[in-house]
Amino acid sequence: MKGISYDDLMSLTLDILQQELSYPKDKAEITAWTLVEADARGVSSHGVARLPAYQKQQEKGFVFPENEPVVELETPVSLVINGNSCVGPYIADFTMQKIIEKTNQTGCCLASVKDSNHYGMAGLWAEKAALSGLVGMAFTNTLKCCLVTFGKERMLGTNPIAMAIPSGEKHNMFLLDMATPVVANGKVQVYDRQTKPMPDGWCVDENGSPLTDATRMNQLTKTHVPMGGHLFLGGQGEIMGGHKGYGLGLLVELLCSGLSLGRASYSTFQNPGSGSGICHFFGAFRLDLFGDAISIKSHISSILNDIRKSAKETGQNRIYIHGEKEREFRENSMKNGIVLDEATEKLLDKYKKKLDI
Amino acid sequence: MKGISYDDLMSLTLDILQQELSYPKDKAEITAWTLVEADARGVSSHGVARLPAYQKQQEKGFVFPENEPVVELETPVSLVINGNSCVGPYIADFTMQKIIEKTNQTGCCLASVKDSNHYGMAGLWAEKAALSGLVGMAFTNTLKCCLVTFGKERMLGTNPIAMAIPSGEKHNMFLLDMATPVVANGKVQVYDRQTKPMPDGWCVDENGSPLTDATRMNQLTKTHVPMGGHLFLGGQGEIMGGHKGYGLGLLVELLCSGLSLGRASYSTFQNPGSGSGICHFFGAFRLDLFGDAISIKSHISSILNDIRKSAKETGQNRIYIHGEKEREFRENSMKNGIVLDEATEKLLDKYKKKLDI
Repeated sequence: MKGISYDDLMSLTLDILQQELSYPKDKAEITAWTLVEADARGVSSHGVARLPAYQKQQEKGFVFPENEPVVELETPVSLVINGNSCVGPYIADFTMQKIIEKTNQTGCCLASVKDSNHYGMAGLWAEKAALSGLVGMAFTNTLKCCLVTFGKERMLGTNPIAMAIPSGEKHNMFLLDMATPVVANGKVQVYDRQTKPMPDGWCVDENGSPLTDATRMNQLTKTHVPMGGHLFLGGQGEIMGGHKGYGLGLLVELLCSGLSLGRASYSTFQNPGSGSGICHFFGAFRLDLFGDAISIKSHISSILNDIRKSAKETGQNRIYIHGEKEREFRENSMKNGIVLDEATEKLLDKYKKKLDI
Repeated sequence: MKGISYDDLMSLTLDILQQELSYPKDKAEITAWTLVEADARGVSSHGVARLPAYQKQQEKGFVFPENEPVVELETPVSLVINGNSCVGPYIADFTMQKIIEKTNQTGCCLASVKDSNHYGMAGLWAEKAALSGLVGMAFTNTLKCCLVTFGKERMLGTNPIAMAIPSGEKHNMFLLDMATPVVANGKVQVYDRQTKPMPDGWCVDENGSPLTDATRMNQLTKTHVPMGGHLFLGGQGEIMGGHKGYGLGLLVELLCSGLSLGRASYSTFQNPGSGSGICHFFGAFRLDLFGDAISIKSHISSILNDIRKSAKETGQNRIYIHGEKEREFRENSMKNGIVLDEATEKLLDKYKKKLDI
């Protein structure tokens, strides 16, 4: 199956962002990059299918593409950023660029960000630091959609954790990028677009009963009924560790919203006209804080290789390191084009028609 | 049910460590504190029932209580510690004390530690930073006992994540302390001591089949057959997010073993006479990096309270914040004594007889 080329999808996405969403060029470029990278890596939950959601959020006054993020407070090891409800990927890139500069000087840097917006795949920002040879981390809160252990009300977001650790070889970077519930909300949207039932154990309805209908789940999170939603990693209750997933989600919430004095996930997207209130937390540190960076990277690489080589489960012939599947998917996309699902293709066709492309 | 008083259990544990294990006084004190704190908090997996394991590890030449940890490398924001195979809690306390001092000066500090030993509940060390008003983090690798996604060989440890965030009120601290598999290995030992079957989904045997027999699981991790063991949070495969739990376990491994150039979990406890090789990673940062610390703590406190107040699942009347159950358990232990299970009581009786107490 032949897909659309990376460059063509980038160019089309840029046109849509600039013409349909009136993004200034610099903001359109970084946003298009995050969307196309996600599709190229097979993470369609964070790809160009998000465009209508971005457009809607902008129309409602949650995103102000003309605004600029500002540094409100700075120490040698930290930054406090006010995103001024600008475009999420632009704010994330702005912040991580500054973090990398400061980390190269002082050894480490942490940043809190308030009043931002959806910044695409969290992993891209952690990876940005790792491509500069640093350990990188990126966290964000989101729209409320997850139930805490013993709760039935959506309180926390899918609050992803992204951590990237370089190993000296670009193709052997550890890149963890995980939503803290069983699955990211974008995955539900993929099932919805494809009208497929979701596996049992991902979500529950407003009565706490298993919910496998992705369309209903998608509608649920848009209603004013605040009950029912995603289960955190480990599922319902405590037996299989659901309280641990909830703990990770809450940790991300406190790092993002708590430290930035910004809105918690249960208060984002509440005031049309005044920004969504999404908050982030970023960080990076240098490997040579801990000794010779080349030896450390080589040690990390050998640990990853030992794990790859370890004995496989019956029926499996490969053990993956985090980030590896997406890296290989991307290589294939660069060779054979990016394959989009039918709903996304239709969506792009609609935009093309409208923009007369 | 009346338990043993905190002070009595502390005194007895001190005697055992000093007389039976020949710990110097300072190392016995900090070790006894970690064990008794765990029992007082209801975390019996990390309590005094560990004494025989500590003794055995010492006899085998994995722990050298006379040794001292040293700082091998230092920057304003980092420490590299060689534990010299001394007592784990002593090394952890030594490191976190130095981190707190440096963080108070520079805003944040990270530390890698190699050649350490089991340091007790990870949460105690993160909490130590938070009791000084800092965000604290503590990670450690352990003995290999977990299967990576699609693997059948024990490669990683239970690699816990501990993060503590102060909220201004001691009784409202967020204290996440979670092993990255579904359950900590100590939990299996509790089921073994109580000869109870474990829930399905915690562990699998050498053939990848569900294993609910805690005694067999406990034996398995002691054999030379390296197959079968703990499943990471999210369970087997990827559908319920097992690759995320594996990712967290691997992240901890890379932060601990990778950065310190120390042994990975699959290489710890391999060379009797030359230390276990356990590695840790610690960190802390100041809240006022991000603005007024009092406002931040109050914002954190309000987020935690909003979550507590949110709607409960049918049949539940309370939503817990991480660390809260253990804090309340401890309060009860201080009032009514620490209740130990029968096997642990018998163990202490044996020690008492031997020491003629």
